[in-house]
Amino acid sequence: LRKGFPEVIFGQGKTTAQIIAILEKLEQSENIVLVTRIDQEKANTVLSRFPNAQYFDDAHLLKIEKQPPAITGRGTILIVSAGTSDIPVAMEAYLTAKAMGNQVKTLFDVGVAGIHRLFAHQADLEKAAVIIVAAGMEGALPSVVGGLVKSPVIAVPTSVGYGTSFNGMTALLGMLNSCSSNIAVVNIDNGFGAGYMAATINHVGVEF
Amino acid sequence: LRKGFPEVIFGQGKTTAQIIAILEKLEQSENIVLVTRIDQEKANTVLSRFPNAQYFDDAHLLKIEKQPPAITGRGTILIVSAGTSDIPVAMEAYLTAKAMGNQVKTLFDVGVAGIHRLFAHQADLEKAAVIIVAAGMEGALPSVVGGLVKSPVIAVPTSVGYGTSFNGMTALLGMLNSCSSNIAVVNIDNGFGAGYMAATINHVGVEF
Amino acid sequence: LRKGFPEVIFGQGKTTAQIIAILEKLEQSENIVLVTRIDQEKANTVLSRFPNAQYFDDAHLLKIEKQPPAITGRGTILIVSAGTSDIPVAMEAYLTAKAMGNQVKTLFDVGVAGIHRLFAHQADLEKAAVIIVAAGMEGALPSVVGGLVKSPVIAVPTSVGYGTSFNGMTALLGMLNSCSSNIAVVNIDNGFGAGYMAATINHVGVEF
Amino acid sequence: LRKGFPEVIFGQGKTTAQIIAILEKLEQSENIVLVTRIDQEKANTVLSRFPNAQYFDDAHLLKIEKQPPAITGRGTILIVSAGTSDIPVAMEAYLTAKAMGNQVKTLFDVGVAGIHRLFAHQADLEKAAVIIVAAGMEGALPSVVGGLVKSPVIAVPTSVGYGTSFNGMTALLGMLNSCSSNIAVVNIDNGFGAGYMAATINHVGVEF
Amino acid sequence: LRKGFPEVIFGQGKTTAQIIAILEKLEQSENIVLVTRIDQEKANTVLSRFPNAQYFDDAHLLKIEKQPPAITGRGTILIVSAGTSDIPVAMEAYLTAKAMGNQVKTLFDVGVAGIHRLFAHQADLEKAAVIIVAAGMEGALPSVVGGLVKSPVIAVPTSVGYGTSFNGMTALLGMLNSCSSNIAVVNIDNGFGAGYMAATINHVGVEF
Amino acid sequence: LRKGFPEVIFGQGKTTAQIIAILEKLEQSENIVLVTRIDQEKANTVLSRFPNAQYFDDAHLLKIEKQPPAITGRGTILIVSAGTSDIPVAMEAYLTAKAMGNQVKTLFDVGVAGIHRLFAHQADLEKAAVIIVAAGMEGALPSVVGGLVKSPVIAVPTSVGYGTSFNGMTALLGMLNSCSSNIAVVNIDNGFGAGYMAATINHVGVEF
Amino acid sequence: LRKGFPEVIFGQGKTTAQIIAILEKLEQSENIVLVTRIDQEKANTVLSRFPNAQYFDDAHLLKIEKQPPAITGRGTILIVSAGTSDIPVAMEAYLTAKAMGNQVKTLFDVGVAGIHRLFAHQADLEKAAVIIVAAGMEGALPSVVGGLVKSPVIAVPTSVGYGTSFNGMTALLGMLNSCSSNIAVVNIDNGFGAGYMAATINHVGVEF
Amino acid sequence: LRKGFPEVIFGQGKTTAQIIAILEKLEQSENIVLVTRIDQEKANTVLSRFPNAQYFDDAHLLKIEKQPPAITGRGTILIVSAGTSDIPVAMEAYLTAKAMGNQVKTLFDVGVAGIHRLFAHQADLEKAAVIIVAAGMEGALPSVVGGLVKSPVIAVPTSVGYGTSFNGMTALLGMLNSCSSNIAVVNIDNGFGAGYMAATINHVGVEF
Ligand SMILES: Nc1ncnc2c1ncn2[C@@H]1O[C@H](COP(=O)(O)O)[C@@H](O)[C@H]1O
Ligand SMILES: Nc1ncnc2c1ncn2[C@@H]1O[C@H](COP(=O)(O)O)[C@@H](O)[C@H]1O
Ligand SMILES: Nc1ncnc2c1ncn2[C@@H]1O[C@H](COP(=O)(O)O)[C@@H](O)[C@H]1O
Ligand SMILES: Nc1ncnc2c1ncn2[C@@H]1O[C@H](COP(=O)(O)O)[C@@H](O)[C@H]1O
Ligand SMILES: [Mg+2]
Ligand SMILES: [Mg+2]
Ligand SMILES: [Mg+2]
Ligand SMILES: [Mg+2]
Ligand SMILES: [Mg+2]
Ligand SMILES: [Mg+2]
Ligand SMILES: [Mg+2]
Ligand SMILES: [Mg+2]
Repeated sequence: LRKGFPEVIFGQGKTTAQIIAILEKLEQSENIVLVTRIDQEKANTVLSRFPNAQYFDDAHLLKIEKQPPAITGRGTILIVSAGTSDIPVAMEAYLTAKAMGNQVKTLFDVGVAGIHRLFAHQADLEKAAVIIVAAGMEGALPSVVGGLVKSPVIAVPTSVGYGTSFNGMTALLGMLNSCSSNIAVVNIDNGFGAGYMAATINHVGVEF
Repeated sequence: LRKGFPEVIFGQGKTTAQIIAILEKLEQSENIVLVTRIDQEKANTVLSRFPNAQYFDDAHLLKIEKQPPAITGRGTILIVSAGTSDIPVAMEAYLTAKAMGNQVKTLFDVGVAGIHRLFAHQADLEKAAVIIVAAGMEGALPSVVGGLVKSPVIAVPTSVGYGTSFNGMTALLGMLNSCSSNIAVVNIDNGFGAGYMAATINHVGVEF
Repeated sequence: LRKGFPEVIFGQGKTTAQIIAILEKLEQSENIVLVTRIDQEKANTVLSRFPNAQYFDDAHLLKIEKQPPAITGRGTILIVSAGTSDIPVAMEAYLTAKAMGNQVKTLFDVGVAGIHRLFAHQADLEKAAVIIVAAGMEGALPSVVGGLVKSPVIAVPTSVGYGTSFNGMTALLGMLNSCSSNIAVVNIDNGFGAGYMAATINHVGVEF
Repeated sequence: LRKGFPEVIFGQGKTTAQIIAILEKLEQSENIVLVTRIDQEKANTVLSRFPNAQYFDDAHLLKIEKQPPAITGRGTILIVSAGTSDIPVAMEAYLTAKAMGNQVKTLFDVGVAGIHRLFAHQADLEKAAVIIVAAGMEGALPSVVGGLVKSPVIAVPTSVGYGTSFNGMTALLGMLNSCSSNIAVVNIDNGFGAGYMAATINHVGVEF
Repeated sequence: LRKGFPEVIFGQGKTTAQIIAILEKLEQSENIVLVTRIDQEKANTVLSRFPNAQYFDDAHLLKIEKQPPAITGRGTILIVSAGTSDIPVAMEAYLTAKAMGNQVKTLFDVGVAGIHRLFAHQADLEKAAVIIVAAGMEGALPSVVGGLVKSPVIAVPTSVGYGTSFNGMTALLGMLNSCSSNIAVVNIDNGFGAGYMAATINHVGVEF
Repeated sequence: LRKGFPEVIFGQGKTTAQIIAILEKLEQSENIVLVTRIDQEKANTVLSRFPNAQYFDDAHLLKIEKQPPAITGRGTILIVSAGTSDIPVAMEAYLTAKAMGNQVKTLFDVGVAGIHRLFAHQADLEKAAVIIVAAGMEGALPSVVGGLVKSPVIAVPTSVGYGTSFNGMTALLGMLNSCSSNIAVVNIDNGFGAGYMAATINHVGVEF
Repeated sequence: LRKGFPEVIFGQGKTTAQIIAILEKLEQSENIVLVTRIDQEKANTVLSRFPNAQYFDDAHLLKIEKQPPAITGRGTILIVSAGTSDIPVAMEAYLTAKAMGNQVKTLFDVGVAGIHRLFAHQADLEKAAVIIVAAGMEGALPSVVGGLVKSPVIAVPTSVGYGTSFNGMTALLGMLNSCSSNIAVVNIDNGFGAGYMAATINHVGVEF
Repeated sequence: LRKGFPEVIFGQGKTTAQIIAILEKLEQSENIVLVTRIDQEKANTVLSRFPNAQYFDDAHLLKIEKQPPAITGRGTILIVSAGTSDIPVAMEAYLTAKAMGNQVKTLFDVGVAGIHRLFAHQADLEKAAVIIVAAGMEGALPSVVGGLVKSPVIAVPTSVGYGTSFNGMTALLGMLNSCSSNIAVVNIDNGFGAGYMAATINHVGVEF
């Protein structure tokens, strides 16, 4: 088990045959294996070979899990997202953090244009140990969330938008220039990385 | 009087001699003339020639005003800004809108990292006919303001920030991709343009 | 009714099922609902579920309208466009402004290479309360129109062009740097935003 | 005390008078106040007004500290930097994290071109609760460090370099695309933000 | 005489000593030598060595001309510019074209925001054999001029503007995407190149 | 006849029906009509309606020509291209210049990596009145050609290349920064514009 | 034989017919001909015409080789790559260098996130005369390799990654800013160029 | 001696005190030490402490050399440059390669606009073991040189130019997209890196 965490295969650009071959090696020694960025069609072939696998189509993620992981993380990780189209990235973060032994909650569709929807959840925001915020377009949500809490916020820009959203670059730049200081950023659409980083933070000082 | 509005000289890149020459021509026929983007030193020379002129060092703007303009605009224009460093741009917008016959109010230092400061002014926001929002860094403030009101919002990105703020480009992109729909944008640091546009909006259907 | 205006669904990236589900919720309480950025195929499925809906293929927009909206806007909104390929964006603006209770007129195919075609319509330009100008390529038309009128101009860059048009970025930059001051800009291809902003401007000081 | 952490003034773009005025307000109620991005000259004036202040010229940071902060952070924060020119950013991170109640260690001049220097410190790397890595030029150091540890790594790109280093943009992009997953990134030269984020992480689940 | 045209020294980045040394070589064999991009101070030193030289401070250009060149160009070259700040670039083009044996006329300060000023000169525009148009900001003027004439237009973007004018990049992009087809473009602020190209065009088929 | 030149339809983004409709209007009054950027499939439909039309698949151009145009241009236009993949752009220039009443010659496949192939044609280069050079990748050919001749060179960058060729941007930038001065540039892949501009240049002072 | 090296056809953008035609000319006089960037389908047609040809699907390269080339290169060229997805580029380099008369070895899947895998091969790295390193994402591997050896390193960025990897631009920038000095860089995905350059280096001072 | 080559201090961003401190350590054990990117003023202070040092103002480089290095490199390294302003970068390469034990020759001022000047030196070009080419503006010279020789070419873009030369970015892009294959590229203005890489190449297979 690499670093005590589940093994993860980056599915994008791999053939189904390559993915199955890696899974065959890992399946014996690992309790949990994730395949990220795998589409429904490839997943179906993998599922027919590994009937114990599960496919999450909203997150484009496939999981083989022998036993649910022990909850070793310190507190709750909260996944916040701005709009409907940000949900796939948010779900990739959710499943990653979950597989890494954390309690994880979600709070979707609370974008800054209707900011009262966010404020209705102030208690959940304050209770979270770590918060992940996924947002596209102008990427303003992490700034607002960061201003409401003391905990660390992982901002993940999504490629949602058009024109000058430049496939997530505008959201990324906004997040890097946030006027809230408890924010760090991962690559565009990198839900996996956000989940992984949050899990790492939630395990600081934990032996596992 | 150009279009019923005051005459405006773009001071940047003009010599003091050129500015004085233009002022000498305009001063006779105009009630108000503005010189934008003029520094203290050049302004001093102009002031010694036109003792009736006034220099506003926060806005880098010089004004010759024979009589206060009649208030012809329909409602109040509200100028909102995020941080201390955005004030010069906000003040350029303020003086421009004022000189064009509008009632103008300001609401400074209400950036999104401490969003409660903004919400304390909800009533003023709702009463305004037109709102100008100046912000640098991630430029998120116009989105939040736009979501709280029905009136048109003119967003003006400022070059405040460092690193990936790219001298205002990040703020500009954020504003163009706002998830609030009652927003349109002007050039970086273009307080004059924001004030002019707001004044134009505030005079729709007004004969003047 | 959000803010007294019709409800709008951003169709891009939503499945037909998602769109129908939202429409089912909104249809009861709303007089008008728009779905923007929806293609013919998805629209057909929606139309078979909502036979009272209408699809506008030039604007890629679907509308459910129980009753024509009351005309509450102050004056006429004029939609100007440069070339044939800009018409879809212009039509999205047209239908949005119309659904928001405004008198709307169009003036298409008056690009700057043959500027006399524009000048033939000087009277219409001067009469308009608000003007929307859609243009791609070098995006010069808003500057010229802005120089001819006193009213506010909303410039909407389109992704029309090739090579260094950079999918509308060149037009956007041109509009942001216009030497006319009564101009503000929205995102590339954002006809909806232009129409919405113009409607908001045309309702300044109106109770509705 | 803002959020239980010291108060911090962003010195860049503020006059000495403005800085002193803010300090006068804060000094009474706060145990520690930091002023970041303040040069030697301005600092001298502040020091003559607040003789109890301290200026750190390598970090361009001024501190007023009545009592050393209680160490409330869970583990040690390790600050790693690649080259001599990255030290100012690293020191800003160091002083920020320190003022926020953390045990902080440094490991400077261990860039990837002579990677054995880094490996000599493997034990320190593994013991750290949170690691900050500052690097300019190609910004490769966080990837290498991230691959050696289980703890979270905050990567801070510096503007060190020339030509295509694009003032830190190349380092930033490298860090965002790291093949190590326990990495998140802050703005170019944002030592303060890195220190703040690391302190926040080191306080997850801590009441303070 | 290179190609029958005057010899030209690119002054930028050369020391006064280097410029004088080159001039000493060229002065004997050449009728006309130009030094472009030379400032007043360097020019003064050159003038004290070559009292027959002339310095044009608006164009930052120094000329040694033994005899006025014979007018060998076919028609008139017209230099059009948008604003006051574009004049230095326009004047560099003017002096270059003039030194290359052409009849040259100027038409300054006819930017697109007040397009009637341009139209007052329709006859001059139509009579010109070649037209150079210098413009900054949105760079729209060449499109409009190109639409009014049959002759070739050389567009030269200037670095005039601020914010998203990106030191002339916006004007350049606008000109490259012009909807008029009789336009080709030179580098930003390259008045020399525009004048040279126009002179070359005006000599097509001429033996000289 | 627009400006004495053939009428040209920009085919890209127009439906076959739209193209046919425009052709029906123009065909009666015009001797020559060109449709640029039209693919084989659309062309076939147009050909079945206009059997007198001709399709040039290398140039993606369709032509209706009642009578060959009179040769009114002053000299020969020479079209030079660097590699095989640049030929479509070069042929678009060729057919455009030809239709506008010019003698046109071609010289293909003479890229700078094997520069002797170019030098073998020095005589043709020197005889040409105007030269068009199409090149992709590093776009160096126009500089070399420009250095060998006195005539004006129209450089047209092509989108040929991969990686950092950025779809022609690298070639464009190279051409704008040419150290030869008798060069001006048109948009990426704009063979039509190059041909049009060259034809315009070749008609300077010609009544037609 | 061009320069003593095999003849190479750039397959991208050429039709199968064009490729076969060129091969027919070259096949007679050449011992080895390579076609790069040719897909399986086109390759099949070529193979049916040239049964002695070989297709390498991992490198998208087709080879006609009458006799294995004599090994004329001085030492061994080592091809190093970071991840599975970089292998196609690495293999293009491998086959190119091999066909040019060099001993070539490979060392794949030794990315910087697990740097011990690389260090296990220190001896091979030190023995190599020239090293090619292919890497995508943050492109850090060449810096690390360069720091371990005295020999020249050719770095080839690959388009592997997503979001801000910008199709290889991030890897390219990282390599250009390497803090190791024995590195030079070729275009993104240019395995051919890397192999060619390495072969050229390995033949310095060799008569062949 | 690091790797058998002289020790090099990157002077940029270091204080004179820092440079002297490092020199004091290195001077005892090293035969040659270079300090790159050091200006005249700093150099003077260093010279007064190390009277045996030498300053090269054209290269902004300081050298302490106890004994001329043994010539261990295999052949001659030829440094080619395009224009006068490229000489500083070329000289940095020259002095670096020289200090690393190579025979080095120079060929300056042979830019592509007057390509015959280059051809006059064909013999020198063909005899060189390795060639460095420094060029700014459009950066076309390496392509032309690469096409004339079989040896490896190291291309170094310089920041010479204005407007769209973008401080060397245009030259860099041109070089990366060269249609000659025996070319690899280093960072903008990186004469040191070019010299170092060339020296490394010239020592392939040499024990030293
Ligand atoms: N969606 C993802 N984005 C970025 N990195 C990932 C992703 N999924 C997996 N990874 C990383 O990729 C590694 C496996 O890569 P590979 O060896 O190419 O299968 C994992 O151990 C993770 O560190
Ligand atoms: N074409 C469009 N471009 C930009 N924003 C839009 C567009 N259409 C709708 N919207 C906005 O998106 C909101 C609805 O988003 P959603 O909840 O994702 O359907 C609407 O209230 C509008 O403010
Ligand atoms: N302002 C300018 N911009 C671009 N090129 C110029 C300029 N002035 C002169 N040149 C060119 O530079 C050449 C001389 O350059 P140099 O050898 O550096 O003196 C002249 O022959 C012109 O072709
Ligand atoms: N002009 C230069 N450009 C790039 N790298 C350089 C330069 N001069 C020296 N270096 C590199 O920088 C290292 C020394 O860096 P430093 O320790 O900061 O002095 C040397 O060993 C070289 O590898
Ligand atoms: Mg958002
Ligand atoms: Mg802000
Ligand atoms: Mg247009
Ligand atoms: Mg580094
Ligand atoms: Mg202009
Ligand atoms: Mg080329
Ligand atoms: Mg990599
Ligand atoms: Mg050059």
